[in-house]
Amino acid sequence: MHVREGDIILLYRSLKRKFVVKVEKGRDIHTDLGVIRLSNVIGLPYGSRVKTHLGEEFILLKPSILDAVYIGFKRKTQVIYPKDAAYIILTASVSSGSRVVEAGTGSGCLTAILAYLVKPTGRVYSYEVREEFLEVAKENLNSVGLLDYVELKLKDIRKGIDEDQIDAVILDLPDPWNVVEHARKCLRSGGVLVAFLPTINQIERTSIVLRDLGFIDICVVELLLREYRVERDSTRPKTLMVGHTGYIVSARRP
Amino acid sequence: MHVREGDIILLYRSLKRKFVVKVEKGRDIHTDLGVIRLSNVIGLPYGSRVKTHLGEEFILLKPSILDAVYIGFKRKTQVIYPKDAAYIILTASVSSGSRVVEAGTGSGCLTAILAYLVKPTGRVYSYEVREEFLEVAKENLNSVGLLDYVELKLKDIRKGIDEDQIDAVILDLPDPWNVVEHARKCLRSGGVLVAFLPTINQIERTSIVLRDLGFIDICVVELLLREYRVERDSTRPKTLMVGHTGYIVSARRP
Amino acid sequence: MHVREGDIILLYRSLKRKFVVKVEKGRDIHTDLGVIRLSNVIGLPYGSRVKTHLGEEFILLKPSILDAVYIGFKRKTQVIYPKDAAYIILTASVSSGSRVVEAGTGSGCLTAILAYLVKPTGRVYSYEVREEFLEVAKENLNSVGLLDYVELKLKDIRKGIDEDQIDAVILDLPDPWNVVEHARKCLRSGGVLVAFLPTINQIERTSIVLRDLGFIDICVVELLLREYRVERDSTRPKTLMVGHTGYIVSARRP
Amino acid sequence: MHVREGDIILLYRSLKRKFVVKVEKGRDIHTDLGVIRLSNVIGLPYGSRVKTHLGEEFILLKPSILDAVYIGFKRKTQVIYPKDAAYIILTASVSSGSRVVEAGTGSGCLTAILAYLVKPTGRVYSYEVREEFLEVAKENLNSVGLLDYVELKLKDIRKGIDEDQIDAVILDLPDPWNVVEHARKCLRSGGVLVAFLPTINQIERTSIVLRDLGFIDICVVELLLREYRVERDSTRPKTLMVGHTGYIVSARRP
Repeated sequence: MHVREGDIILLYRSLKRKFVVKVEKGRDIHTDLGVIRLSNVIGLPYGSRVKTHLGEEFILLKPSILDAVYIGFKRKTQVIYPKDAAYIILTASVSSGSRVVEAGTGSGCLTAILAYLVKPTGRVYSYEVREEFLEVAKENLNSVGLLDYVELKLKDIRKGIDEDQIDAVILDLPDPWNVVEHARKCLRSGGVLVAFLPTINQIERTSIVLRDLGFIDICVVELLLREYRVERDSTRPKTLMVGHTGYIVSARRP
Repeated sequence: MHVREGDIILLYRSLKRKFVVKVEKGRDIHTDLGVIRLSNVIGLPYGSRVKTHLGEEFILLKPSILDAVYIGFKRKTQVIYPKDAAYIILTASVSSGSRVVEAGTGSGCLTAILAYLVKPTGRVYSYEVREEFLEVAKENLNSVGLLDYVELKLKDIRKGIDEDQIDAVILDLPDPWNVVEHARKCLRSGGVLVAFLPTINQIERTSIVLRDLGFIDICVVELLLREYRVERDSTRPKTLMVGHTGYIVSARRP
Repeated sequence: MHVREGDIILLYRSLKRKFVVKVEKGRDIHTDLGVIRLSNVIGLPYGSRVKTHLGEEFILLKPSILDAVYIGFKRKTQVIYPKDAAYIILTASVSSGSRVVEAGTGSGCLTAILAYLVKPTGRVYSYEVREEFLEVAKENLNSVGLLDYVELKLKDIRKGIDEDQIDAVILDLPDPWNVVEHARKCLRSGGVLVAFLPTINQIERTSIVLRDLGFIDICVVELLLREYRVERDSTRPKTLMVGHTGYIVSARRP
Repeated sequence: MHVREGDIILLYRSLKRKFVVKVEKGRDIHTDLGVIRLSNVIGLPYGSRVKTHLGEEFILLKPSILDAVYIGFKRKTQVIYPKDAAYIILTASVSSGSRVVEAGTGSGCLTAILAYLVKPTGRVYSYEVREEFLEVAKENLNSVGLLDYVELKLKDIRKGIDEDQIDAVILDLPDPWNVVEHARKCLRSGGVLVAFLPTINQIERTSIVLRDLGFIDICVVELLLREYRVERDSTRPKTLMVGHTGYIVSARRP
């Protein structure tokens, strides 16, 4: 496969030096290792090496969904980490054909991952109250060709959920307890609610409301990701670590 | 939706008491809370409550893919945990349409999760050298209707990979370094190799071979999952924890 | 040094097979590897090997304070783990000459460690409301010769602390917030209060009371201990782990 | 107690703004909140508040051993964390009267904590090959009045240990396996060797040498410290965390 105008590409140099950009004629990418002319990239096969004007090499790749979201997307908000997104989507059994309600949309990062999984026959209904975020999310989703699988809704999910027979409701907002009753109505039997929350107090309150409203299979977990620096005869975890992102509460409608 | 003969159902009582069974006329499920007659379950709507002969209630649900795999599957081998499976599938960008090579098949747990994600248009090529495991995996995959998306192969993946233009190679075997060269050939540009390994020595050796053979974007991580016991005014992590499952090495073909 | 009657000794076979016993003429120790006659042990130098009647060898050692407390002590209560005890004593700057108030005494495990550190010139004042625990603690402390450095007090510390100019107050009880005011009075300027607590709700409440009563340098931490199984070319963390013991709140009187 | 010239004092403003300084007439302490004249501090009782020339208050305290070491000491080297120091000293049963061998001295941080615990009758024998570090350590230890309990030795511990009947040998150097044989000779029966090491490869090699040379009770652990940010109804772990310092290997001479 060869690079065409309009493609989103990954320029990879190292774990810390990656760029996700849209190929446009005449556009230049400025890096600390020199400038890459995107005009020169058009027509090259994926996997090629391209040089900056200083002769430094980058590898040209198709971005994965994680590259696209975590490197390419504009961000207006705190973004969910891949470790948490991964656990959420498997806990919620999201795959092609799933119908998922999500709130808030934020910059659309989790929305994009969900859309990537439910395509081509499923759908993501994403609620957001801040119009400026919806705009950013729309642009981000469009840039990776996933907007078709998403319905972006300018609506406060605390006021109600319009859909029904939903497979999963995924909540990344500060007061999910105000959404549990709506989620119960929109979920199919056995459907999953997942909430992502930074504080212990929020998980306590959410869990209690879930129990009170008859949800079952309630689990609360957190995930710690530890990265390793591997060298021959000198392998060790990295010194600094993200020690906390958030807790994940999951439950099912009976 | 109503239960039909031949359905796989989840009988849920509590976090610790769940059964995944196939509905067959005349079959009885013996639990420590009494016997459930499956004949009586046929025709009931999902979400119903059913009683054992001792009057204890279970809720009748459609099992999620995780229920099916982790409760319903016969296991002949050590099984990958959901936290690791989740991280692996997102790292490998597996979704509908993906073409994935996996080894070894084992009991088919990860195979099933992969098949669930690549369906309906993708495919999982799963290599295994022990014929008895392939039989178990086949039966497990068939029980959840996912066998159509999987090609089970009685072949030592160290001897070579038959496919090409593969999106991801996922290795859960003790010596992935013997597969890296084959993986490089079968992966498309930008395709991902992921290896799951229990010891530090294995990740060191695997990482070095990946680097030597030109793979990029090499990451080594481990995930710790901590479960919480939530009670009003008394919330805390659970005392016992699985402190180690394995390390995850990921890399990409340039 | 040679073993004398009345000595407390450690009989060591492996990490999982250790016994701490008092040497008494005519006493036999029954293990799953056979019987050890303590009469035969008297007069042997420490470091000797002794055999059971089945010919299995144990090594004869002087027990460390941790052996004495965690293997030798009678336990009537949940016991603080070494990782937490260690962090607490260093945070509280306990060493020879320190004057420490502790509550509740429980089985006297932390009391013994504190006494071991403050000896010979310091003193531990240990409060307990359940008389039967004080009896056990007394016996335990006496068995290791540390009773002289401890004042065991049958008193509810919530009713007040009798001592003053105390260097550290260490609280292992469910409602430390009821002791903070008393602790403030008994501590010297710069003296440290440490509370060990299993739930998040308790640390929140304790921290807030500490702040409200003018304590400074308030820190809340938890410690996770991970054990490794080391084998040549096969080193990994142990599978099972204690995922939670408790949180440690520390603060100082200005 | 009142501040006298020559005292080491702690000036505390908040968890992030602490100073440990020696009181000298005419000396000024420059902080981002203004200047504190130490001449004005002499004669004040500990626990007083002092003001900078901008009117900002600091609390005047006697520093704890941790304040003295971690805030007051000059550092020329990577320094062991309190969580690890705490676990090491309890594992090695260090208390008043203990005779401890340590290498390398480095900036003397662990040396000072050991001296603080063994005083007044015990002794720390600290080996270091780099003379400039010994100078720094000497100055640091002297500043807190602990030099009398330490023998600083300009000697490569790999060449041998001069002392005998030692209670504990504590090694913070890259190749402890070269010291194990010497440690075995100098330790009393039951004495403890502890090594602190950043990489997995080092713990594997050290553990194997310990086993081969007949050490018993070999344990390898690591400690993860997680700090919490406590606010009413909003309590959570801190986002950033030190994810790795080092592994601790301990063993005993039979």
